[in-house]
Amino acid sequence: METNPCNNKVNGGSSIPSRVSRKSHPGGTVVNINGIQVGGTEIVIIAGPCAVESHEQLFETARSVKAGGANILRGGAFKPRSSPYNFQGLGEEGLKLLAIIRNETGLPVVTEVMDTRQVELVASYADMIQIGSRNMQNYPLLKEAGMCRKPVLLKRGMMSTVDEFLLAAEYVLNQGNEQVILCERGIRTFETSTRNTLDLSAVPMLKRLSHLPVIVDPSHGTGLSWMVPPMAKAAIAAGADGLIMEVHYHPEDALCDGFQSLNLDEFDQLMSDLKKIARAVGREILISKTSTV
Amino acid sequence: METNPCNNKVNGGSSIPSRVSRKSHPGGTVVNINGIQVGGTEIVIIAGPCAVESHEQLFETARSVKAGGANILRGGAFKPRSSPYNFQGLGEEGLKLLAIIRNETGLPVVTEVMDTRQVELVASYADMIQIGSRNMQNYPLLKEAGMCRKPVLLKRGMMSTVDEFLLAAEYVLNQGNEQVILCERGIRTFETSTRNTLDLSAVPMLKRLSHLPVIVDPSHGTGLSWMVPPMAKAAIAAGADGLIMEVHYHPEDALCDGFQSLNLDEFDQLMSDLKKIARAVGREILISKTSTV
Amino acid sequence: METNPCNNKVNGGSSIPSRVSRKSHPGGTVVNINGIQVGGTEIVIIAGPCAVESHEQLFETARSVKAGGANILRGGAFKPRSSPYNFQGLGEEGLKLLAIIRNETGLPVVTEVMDTRQVELVASYADMIQIGSRNMQNYPLLKEAGMCRKPVLLKRGMMSTVDEFLLAAEYVLNQGNEQVILCERGIRTFETSTRNTLDLSAVPMLKRLSHLPVIVDPSHGTGLSWMVPPMAKAAIAAGADGLIMEVHYHPEDALCDGFQSLNLDEFDQLMSDLKKIARAVGREILISKTSTV
Amino acid sequence: METNPCNNKVNGGSSIPSRVSRKSHPGGTVVNINGIQVGGTEIVIIAGPCAVESHEQLFETARSVKAGGANILRGGAFKPRSSPYNFQGLGEEGLKLLAIIRNETGLPVVTEVMDTRQVELVASYADMIQIGSRNMQNYPLLKEAGMCRKPVLLKRGMMSTVDEFLLAAEYVLNQGNEQVILCERGIRTFETSTRNTLDLSAVPMLKRLSHLPVIVDPSHGTGLSWMVPPMAKAAIAAGADGLIMEVHYHPEDALCDGFQSLNLDEFDQLMSDLKKIARAVGREILISKTSTV
Repeated sequence: METNPCNNKVNGGSSIPSRVSRKSHPGGTVVNINGIQVGGTEIVIIAGPCAVESHEQLFETARSVKAGGANILRGGAFKPRSSPYNFQGLGEEGLKLLAIIRNETGLPVVTEVMDTRQVELVASYADMIQIGSRNMQNYPLLKEAGMCRKPVLLKRGMMSTVDEFLLAAEYVLNQGNEQVILCERGIRTFETSTRNTLDLSAVPMLKRLSHLPVIVDPSHGTGLSWMVPPMAKAAIAAGADGLIMEVHYHPEDALCDGFQSLNLDEFDQLMSDLKKIARAVGREILISKTSTV
Repeated sequence: METNPCNNKVNGGSSIPSRVSRKSHPGGTVVNINGIQVGGTEIVIIAGPCAVESHEQLFETARSVKAGGANILRGGAFKPRSSPYNFQGLGEEGLKLLAIIRNETGLPVVTEVMDTRQVELVASYADMIQIGSRNMQNYPLLKEAGMCRKPVLLKRGMMSTVDEFLLAAEYVLNQGNEQVILCERGIRTFETSTRNTLDLSAVPMLKRLSHLPVIVDPSHGTGLSWMVPPMAKAAIAAGADGLIMEVHYHPEDALCDGFQSLNLDEFDQLMSDLKKIARAVGREILISKTSTV
Repeated sequence: METNPCNNKVNGGSSIPSRVSRKSHPGGTVVNINGIQVGGTEIVIIAGPCAVESHEQLFETARSVKAGGANILRGGAFKPRSSPYNFQGLGEEGLKLLAIIRNETGLPVVTEVMDTRQVELVASYADMIQIGSRNMQNYPLLKEAGMCRKPVLLKRGMMSTVDEFLLAAEYVLNQGNEQVILCERGIRTFETSTRNTLDLSAVPMLKRLSHLPVIVDPSHGTGLSWMVPPMAKAAIAAGADGLIMEVHYHPEDALCDGFQSLNLDEFDQLMSDLKKIARAVGREILISKTSTV
Repeated sequence: METNPCNNKVNGGSSIPSRVSRKSHPGGTVVNINGIQVGGTEIVIIAGPCAVESHEQLFETARSVKAGGANILRGGAFKPRSSPYNFQGLGEEGLKLLAIIRNETGLPVVTEVMDTRQVELVASYADMIQIGSRNMQNYPLLKEAGMCRKPVLLKRGMMSTVDEFLLAAEYVLNQGNEQVILCERGIRTFETSTRNTLDLSAVPMLKRLSHLPVIVDPSHGTGLSWMVPPMAKAAIAAGADGLIMEVHYHPEDALCDGFQSLNLDEFDQLMSDLKKIARAVGREILISKTSTV
């Protein structure tokens, strides 16, 4: 059978790229987002709306997810949308709202960056910058993120192998930034009943191969809000160090991805259930030090 | 954009085939395998070797998995192998060994049938007959299984959608046999670090759409014995009614699939961990009434 | 990176199974279907309806495709359908109609067999038996086909690798039947604008690895009748030894797959175009000796 | 069955984005790259090395592909590589070499841009800018390309549907740049015998849905130099308006992708064969006006 040396596949443990390999940090890396530690014993919950829409929407959602136990706030200011005619995000105005809400709630914020020219801007507002699935192999962006002094949340490409995912992370580490969190968010398969196929086997695989923390996004991974709770529980049972989930105060009115967003009551119920699963695998859900607004 | 009415996709809840649809049994079906109930509150564990190799191998493994808490014994007598030159199973001699071991251990047995001409033979020895992944759309075999009076374990095709899986089950139910268990066992994707991609989101999806019990096979789903424990836990957290796992008394000597088989100590440890997960989701691992050999 | 020895992948040319390997017949095998040679310089056209529906439908279509230049008639008597409630074919009555039409038109017929118990029956009526995509890994059926003295048209599984396809053919050859034609008919991918993704690169790959003739089914491969002509031309340009296409005298009334069936005028036009492509690659479309009804 | 309105699928012809839709230009768009017309009756050949390595390598290859009949020269100065430790291209030095070789040979040049900050720079040297597969959904880059006054070669993402591909092109057109060529270059599937699965059915589908020219890259689409000729022929038979192929004067020494590069003799032979196929579908291979160096 023909073989193809050009496809850059990582074959054999010795060719896992050196900086992301667990061999370089057998004990595992802990990423620190403004005091929130990801990759230790405690499990971290990142929650918030898909997109920043308004102060009211963001603040109401942030306050509620904080009360429910979330540790970090998510929200997109620059949105990668398949169509140029869909809502593209509020841009820098969204970043400013995130900074205001952080001050009001005390929650660190994570938001996506899509353009090398905006890394510095986004990093000046955010506590962690996110590189989204569609940009996992945007190498100039990975390099810029590597030169930035903020932690990086790197999402797996929806059609990227585990090997390619680790090579993408290596681009960031290779610039001197080791504060990287890997996020499984579903891969593209023939199955159409869910938006993507959440590949939970990537969690133990990534944890075994690399020292970096691994979290899971069951919102994009399934595309269906009612499926987020069982898959969130499964992610923790599989060994994830945290979750990132879309929560909206009025999902039915969301400008983006309302179909996969939990409402506030659903989020509260899920947090209660997740505590039990965490304990069943010998861990706890992290309780942020200041839990009141 | 062109659409294709020929692909038999099930669109909209109303077109889930009628007999497998949850609407026909909102409370859910419980399948009874010689006294072992699958689909109730308690979670059922099916364990055993990939293939029946000998009385010693089968008996040693069966006795140990029973002591560890397994409820049903698995073992293949007819093996579907990609190559005609691989071990094809012991055939009827394997069925006889399964029946002997059932009598010795009290464990009901499940084994695969590949040929319409053998359904009657296999059903005369087994407590449940298995239709494997490669035969999920072998319609004559599904019809024969539907006419047989034994429970049927139907594995999802590695290339089959949830819709096609339910349509395959409908073939069995349509012959009058409602004792069907659905088994997610991994689908084929571009990812090569695992043997298949275990699609745990199929568990809540199948439970929502259908009244049939759903179990998970983390052994074939991952192809890696070290990954079976985290994925087995995740399966239960996602709502599975049971697990089917490959266990071998000496995996390194197995004639088939040793790479994905747990050894006896690993199985014992996993069973202990699964009890905690089951409780965290409000369930228990089923304790068979006669737990001694 | 973990590797998995259990997945039976064929790595390296030396492990192509021996009987299908081109090394065993460097010159290539020619399959003879009642005088029609497949695998030589001339390109063979198989055409006809998806399913046998009636004497009129079959005869009208057969007479027309023969007049248009088809060499072999296709038509299903036993139909593998995703749903048990879809038309399942006329069964033996369909086989009888095929035999009658063969006598009337002189066209050899190929039809699918799905059940080991029916191989003898189907082979008694057909000039070539087809094993469909869903049964590519139905090993008992492959063995029965191998023991039968009729040529076998083996379709690639919609989610089977080239390696697995060759291993499936090896099952047939290993029983002593070397009269096997391989058929690429589209694989399952994430793309949904076509029914399947026709993998034309499989044509040169299979021709290189194996001595067996290779044909292409652009009807199932695309699921869209308007796309059959360009893909049929592309298949011949890529090196295919023949085509199998669905043609119906009234596609809009077809009981099965009308959406992907050419009507009689479209078939005539396509045959004319195919002659030019065949010559451009140094071949000819086979002209059957008796071209009148 | 659940449906998901969030996945931005284009359902029904009316929702093909308006600017790329064939409805907006029923006659089809012709893209002009410094006098070379793509999208008319004549088929355009783009050839050259994967990466610009040196003046000698580029000039020798360019002179030879021009003599063989190529119309446009390709060559990467900025290379997207899975690993940060692989050769990343010569950068601006590579762009300068491309401009020199253009002057020497008269061949227009196309080269890839990966970073929004470099669009202006690359456009100042190149006659057409390429957006690669990994950046098909890099929306800021698409917008920058749309604002640039050079033709754009947009490659399909290896994980992108036809719908997403058209939406990506819409981003460019929506900025006022209608000089866009679509390029099918293989998609990612479960099949591993080829580097990607070349989806030639995308050619007639894109031509039907959109007015933009469509070309094919059989080098990346297969990853195997011996498979480039049959798939190049098949692409033209399927209706492609052109081809882009990797050619290297010494493939065995190439710094990148030598395995899939034709050598100069193979390219000459292929060009001769392509002329026959083009005529068989009523077209011609474009002969550039100045065919001497």
